[in-house]
Amino acid sequence: MNTDHYPSRLLEAATSEFAALPGIGKKTALRLVLHLLKQDLADVEKFSSSVLRLKKDIKHCSVCHNISDSEICNICSDHKRDHSIVCVVENIKDVMSIENTHQYSGIYHVLGGIISPMDGIGPGDLNIGSLEEKAAGGNVHEIILALSTTMEGDTTNFYIYRKLHHHPVTITTIARGVSIGDELEYADEVTLGRSISNRTLFEATFNNGKPR
Amino acid sequence: MNTDHYPSRLLEAATSEFAALPGIGKKTALRLVLHLLKQDLADVEKFSSSVLRLKKDIKHCSVCHNISDSEICNICSDHKRDHSIVCVVENIKDVMSIENTHQYSGIYHVLGGIISPMDGIGPGDLNIGSLEEKAAGGNVHEIILALSTTMEGDTTNFYIYRKLHHHPVTITTIARGVSIGDELEYADEVTLGRSISNRTLFEATFNNGKPR
Repeated sequence: MNTDHYPSRLLEAATSEFAALPGIGKKTALRLVLHLLKQDLADVEKFSSSVLRLKKDIKHCSVCHNISDSEICNICSDHKRDHSIVCVVENIKDVMSIENTHQYSGIYHVLGGIISPMDGIGPGDLNIGSLEEKAAGGNVHEIILALSTTMEGDTTNFYIYRKLHHHPVTITTIARGVSIGDELEYADEVTLGRSISNRTLFEATFNNGKPR
Repeated sequence: MNTDHYPSRLLEAATSEFAALPGIGKKTALRLVLHLLKQDLADVEKFSSSVLRLKKDIKHCSVCHNISDSEICNICSDHKRDHSIVCVVENIKDVMSIENTHQYSGIYHVLGGIISPMDGIGPGDLNIGSLEEKAAGGNVHEIILALSTTMEGDTTNFYIYRKLHHHPVTITTIARGVSIGDELEYADEVTLGRSISNRTLFEATFNNGKPR
């Protein structure tokens, strides 16, 4: 289907909208649209409005910049969590990934991206000012940097470190090492090297992988 | 991400809607929704309304049952096409595929499915009655069966044949054979056998693959 003889402009319009989504080609888009066309009107209305409501009604937490249904997100408004530890992540998905480990009980700070001159994203485009305010405020004692180990991630880590290191906070970064279940012979040299130089006490691993 | 800690109900609702589409998992759904969330409100409104308008405003051609923007589709209302040849296909996608070959100038008849007792689809669920009317009407001289070569396709072909063969129409089926570009040694026996018994005059292939 290269020249695409759509029997209907409406079909073509809906297919183009889906095909504009990342990773969705024209064929997949058509398949999805024809699937929706077979559903009841109520279901299609629900689909259509869920997308629109998300865009219209979603809020960003004024504390951590994560997306939220309210002014302050569930995590930031949870008094059982440790508000003196802040984990800095690139985006919303990273918050979800860390939450799914059940290993972290502090709060988050979503940068909303990563410094990437190639994509025209500088420090001014990220939520770094409000992070500095938190560090300066005195209520936070540890800031965990949990960004990707890419060139952009390292640049952003270093930029944040330079901004924060004169404030009275401990700046840590998540451990890098050989993944659990991985064989040593297949680990790359940098990871393996880092996992040796940052070795931990064997006793400290006794409770690992289980929430305490 | 198994337990899925969504930071927002709106995000969760939109993600579930996308994850209900065929071939879209939870992770892909989240990626698509977060992509939409980054777009401008106008773009999201366009996406949302294109889906709803498709479902609300789409029509089915009263002649061939293909989807259409008007009462009679573009193909059926085209006087340059040969209305005495009707190609029977399972669905809308098949019409698009055949149109894209630029080799066919007759009209279509969309069954809207295929006889499949396993899925509870019987002849009564398909547009077979109106096909019989066309065959009986006297204006159609050839009916081409262009269904899949599956058990369901063969069953449907045979059912239609039984319904139509006493009418004054020639019933043909699309050619089955070794695909162009395929090596003989990799063709399955049934296909290769069919391609030998249904061999065509070499001269008849001179114009093949090109619109005349």
